[in-house]
Amino acid sequence: MSEGFREGDFSVTPWEAKGKIDYDKLIQEFGVEKLGEELLSRIERIAGGLHPLLRRNFFFAHRDLNLVLNDYEEGRGFFLYTGRAPSNSPMHIAHIVPFIATRWFQEKFGANVYIQIPDEEKFLAKKVETLEEIEKYAVQDILNIIALGFDENKTFIFRDTEYISKLYKPAVLVARHINFSTARAVFGFDNESTIGLIFYPALQIVPTFFEKKRPLIPCGIDQDPYFRLQRDIAPRLNRYKAAEVLSKLVWGLKGPETKMSASEPDTAILLSDPPETVKRKIINAYTGGRATVEEQRRLGGVPEVCTVFHWYSVLFEDDDKKLLERYHACRTGKLLCGECKAELVERINSFLERHRARVKDAEKKMHLYLYDGKLAQEMWNWEYRP
Amino acid sequence: MSEGFREGDFSVTPWEAKGKIDYDKLIQEFGVEKLGEELLSRIERIAGGLHPLLRRNFFFAHRDLNLVLNDYEEGRGFFLYTGRAPSNSPMHIAHIVPFIATRWFQEKFGANVYIQIPDEEKFLAKKVETLEEIEKYAVQDILNIIALGFDENKTFIFRDTEYISKLYKPAVLVARHINFSTARAVFGFDNESTIGLIFYPALQIVPTFFEKKRPLIPCGIDQDPYFRLQRDIAPRLNRYKAAEVLSKLVWGLKGPETKMSASEPDTAILLSDPPETVKRKIINAYTGGRATVEEQRRLGGVPEVCTVFHWYSVLFEDDDKKLLERYHACRTGKLLCGECKAELVERINSFLERHRARVKDAEKKMHLYLYDGKLAQEMWNWEYRP
Repeated sequence: MSEGFREGDFSVTPWEAKGKIDYDKLIQEFGVEKLGEELLSRIERIAGGLHPLLRRNFFFAHRDLNLVLNDYEEGRGFFLYTGRAPSNSPMHIAHIVPFIATRWFQEKFGANVYIQIPDEEKFLAKKVETLEEIEKYAVQDILNIIALGFDENKTFIFRDTEYISKLYKPAVLVARHINFSTARAVFGFDNESTIGLIFYPALQIVPTFFEKKRPLIPCGIDQDPYFRLQRDIAPRLNRYKAAEVLSKLVWGLKGPETKMSASEPDTAILLSDPPETVKRKIINAYTGGRATVEEQRRLGGVPEVCTVFHWYSVLFEDDDKKLLERYHACRTGKLLCGECKAELVERINSFLERHRARVKDAEKKMHLYLYDGKLAQEMWNWEYRP
Repeated sequence: MSEGFREGDFSVTPWEAKGKIDYDKLIQEFGVEKLGEELLSRIERIAGGLHPLLRRNFFFAHRDLNLVLNDYEEGRGFFLYTGRAPSNSPMHIAHIVPFIATRWFQEKFGANVYIQIPDEEKFLAKKVETLEEIEKYAVQDILNIIALGFDENKTFIFRDTEYISKLYKPAVLVARHINFSTARAVFGFDNESTIGLIFYPALQIVPTFFEKKRPLIPCGIDQDPYFRLQRDIAPRLNRYKAAEVLSKLVWGLKGPETKMSASEPDTAILLSDPPETVKRKIINAYTGGRATVEEQRRLGGVPEVCTVFHWYSVLFEDDDKKLLERYHACRTGKLLCGECKAELVERINSFLERHRARVKDAEKKMHLYLYDGKLAQEMWNWEYRP
């Protein structure tokens, strides 16, 4: 999965990503619901707290999240589903956002998590030249995901080419309900799209049927089209429509709502970036600072358009009070960009260092998520039942 | 697989079938080669004989059959590939023609045979309502196929939904080389085609890569488009282009080059038809007979347009001398339609009776073709290697 937005009419497809976003307009256009105070309070009451990504409205919209909470409170439960398409673009900071949210929901609600690794998608989309190449990236991505702390007995990570024996039959049931017109309209396919890529949406929908419970999908709003289609099809297969909790885009380092892209390395921090690279990238990041130190002392910075402040708010400052202090220190010219950036560099590098240690650890535990953990074992015996 | 021809421009797709056929025009249009005397003599020399379907030019065209014979004579060998898509239309007499030819080539050349049972195709094409329904028909079809006498250690029969774990990865490699434009042009897909059916051609191509030898496919000429596409793709995957030996259409009971269709029962003899049904159908068959007995005695019949004579020539009279005698007896008015039909009824019923006994026997041997025979065991351990 990738995140992306098309310019102009705000139409959003998972295949392309450009331009600025009016999220209120997107809510209207996508027909999703705003994730408002009332629902957030309800989550907070049940979970005993709110993750900063929810509290700060980075997850800003949803579908049926209220029903998910009903299911939870009334004992029916729910499950979580997310994914990551491996490619030669390695994982960057923005990629971990849906996984962080998924992990949080797992921890607070004790729900099973299913993570799809479509190890054919980028090959079929002609972004990668061989399946062998993807294999290497798939393992790296899986380790990065495991390192984020999922429960090894409640999480199943599966590669399409490996798990296809279980996926294909339900995918056929799904595929019968999707014709080329619909696929073209939803995913932007055209005459040049390969027939494998055209089929792929069916495989992405199948995991929403892994349990006879409501699936909740934390994802970037660009992924919504897939699951809108799922919501059309699910009732016809007598299954739950997918619920979603939808995030904004993490800004790239080039400015507000620019894309973070692993293929343009200076827009993103990769999980594999060494400390010096992180430093160089953050020093060059677009900020809300003024042209000169004197001017900034006098007028203050503009954190609202600052990528550095954005990154603090999304991932690198959990403490609301401290975030607010940083905001005011910037606005009043007390905090200059150099200092603010240096602190961010430190936090990112410290996060990446800990992350890499957890990746090392994940190498030993990977078999649990793929084959041997409680849920993984169950899923290798799973059969789709109508 | 189904056979079929579109009216008008003689374009032929596996999805539709109507109209009369000019086979010489088809040879030109499809760019295939005529199966001529020289090649037939060469086959006869190697095989020690010619099957009537070859001898009588019912298999009338080919691609690379000369290269197949080179491969055989020079010790590289070849393998055979065919298939049958199960549906609620049960197998009829015409369906067994490619299998008879395949079995003959296996017997004479000792080649392995792979038989694909695409147990999702008719569901995706919306000809059948559930996969469960197909399951039932698939077993019946497999038994009918086994009953035709394939070598249990050199034949592997596989259902797509069951064997997909081995098929999907090479199908992805194939699918990357087929875009929607091509698929639409070759198979007549349109905006209403389901995305599963659009993907399916990739799965049909994969078995041509089961061995690193040349695959030979005996089939109706309507199946050629699939394999023409295979011939475009194979060199890019460093594999052999499929060779084909291509048959005409067995006439339905309504007249010359009408379609035999299980969904219009009076056009076809089903393998499951009881003797009385066979009798009724043949008695009502279109013949080259005259309006009255007197006229027929005087003018003779026209075997060239007679479905009864056609069926003798294709399947129910192996002896060339006797077939010629029947031809002359008809032309000279000595043999009347009633007698000729009665004999055919007897031959068909005797064939069907023996066939059903062999189907009974096949029930006990089915596991060998699917899982436990020498080739089947090998194929369950097979992995596609680039």
